[in-house]
Amino acid sequence: MSGRLFVIGTGPGNPDQMTPEAHAAVSKATVFFGYGPYLDRLNLRADQTRQASDNREELDRAGAALRAASEGAIVCVVSGGDPGVFAMAAAVCEAVDDGPDAWRDVDLVILPGITAMLAVAARVGAPLGHDFCAISLSDNLKPWATIEKRLASAAEGGFVIALYNPISKARPWQLGKAFELLREKLPGSTPVIFGRAAGRPDERISVQPLNVADAAMADMATCVIIGSAETKIIEREGKADLIYTPRFSGGAAGD
Amino acid sequence: MSGRLFVIGTGPGNPDQMTPEAHAAVSKATVFFGYGPYLDRLNLRADQTRQASDNREELDRAGAALRAASEGAIVCVVSGGDPGVFAMAAAVCEAVDDGPDAWRDVDLVILPGITAMLAVAARVGAPLGHDFCAISLSDNLKPWATIEKRLASAAEGGFVIALYNPISKARPWQLGKAFELLREKLPGSTPVIFGRAAGRPDERISVQPLNVADAAMADMATCVIIGSAETKIIEREGKADLIYTPRFSGGAAGD
Repeated sequence: MSGRLFVIGTGPGNPDQMTPEAHAAVSKATVFFGYGPYLDRLNLRADQTRQASDNREELDRAGAALRAASEGAIVCVVSGGDPGVFAMAAAVCEAVDDGPDAWRDVDLVILPGITAMLAVAARVGAPLGHDFCAISLSDNLKPWATIEKRLASAAEGGFVIALYNPISKARPWQLGKAFELLREKLPGSTPVIFGRAAGRPDERISVQPLNVADAAMADMATCVIIGSAETKIIEREGKADLIYTPRFSGGAAGD
Repeated sequence: MSGRLFVIGTGPGNPDQMTPEAHAAVSKATVFFGYGPYLDRLNLRADQTRQASDNREELDRAGAALRAASEGAIVCVVSGGDPGVFAMAAAVCEAVDDGPDAWRDVDLVILPGITAMLAVAARVGAPLGHDFCAISLSDNLKPWATIEKRLASAAEGGFVIALYNPISKARPWQLGKAFELLREKLPGSTPVIFGRAAGRPDERISVQPLNVADAAMADMATCVIIGSAETKIIEREGKADLIYTPRFSGGAAGD
């Protein structure tokens, strides 16, 4: 007998940014798998059990969750943000792809969430108001050369760029290198938004122009948004600047 | 005296996918501006007034909302999906940029929502599980040459591509042309996901390989997601295929 596997996203961490359907899934499930700090965002009941694991053990966690669901449990795999963006939904699919047939029978229900770039963008205006891309800067799962190529394609194509996983103790230089590469393609005045913990009490949002953007402003919990050549800044007296990318475009960068 | 201007997203249309903070903003506001079908998603009270306008009048609507807020009203501008993705947040910023100084004093609160590509992705698996981009296919606001350039950059860079505004009565050929261009860059087997009204009663999700993908499958309410060369399909007996892009990558398309 097969149970059900919910894969949910908490959003960036403010419970008011988690959807009602995700809250309802949490209420139905009895076993929870996820990175500890994400599980901490849920107010689990005494009859609900949590299996916290390190953030680098996603595939093992996905397999354990599928096993529990295939044995009949109502299971919830918890991601921060949206589960489909650099998060657990892909890991669960990978585990299904490589796992026993029984895992394909599991009733898999993936529920979307507010991903970091949307929450950060909303705090500063509308930097994602026109064409944009999302790139994970982690070279644990792909060659650095691929990342360099994608950064170049994105800048040449005129996309606003959201960087996920910009920096960690094991990956200290990649964000600085990305800024260096982008300085060759984009105006020095292009706004770079460092959005940490958007919507949470420890939120910290700051903006620097690309020519002086400092990678040390970012940590693991930061989403970095780099404007296109068309992104604009509106100064407001007594209020934070608004940053937005107009809906209309005269041409791609470099045209 | 200046009021407040909320800019919210309803998500794709299922009220259970609208965040609690957006629901709270709706409850506080007294005047609502937006495209009629989006306003219809809210259960407004008798003391709340609605100013519905056509979807092509975004800048006028933004100005009217800012004027009402600058005169002291608690105003809510309503987008579908996320207000920051090809929607009203950028239009409001544009209006602030070009408008009277008083509009800069308005307390502007932008609240993120579930944008269509996240909701569609969740329904089929995790096609956005690795680097991706979002492109509006409307050439009302940018030259078609810019769109062609961005499609090429995205495909060459190995990005999964989410297309917003894929087709309309006034723009009947652009999606078919985009498929043609992408067929030159991507394998014919690349999955193309047509996600219409995700999460709503009239939801319709279908998948075709790129080599036979038919633009007639899309309408104005459809978000089209085109995989990368690395996107995979998992067949499941008695269940819809799962489509996902692995978290790891061997290299960009064409490498």
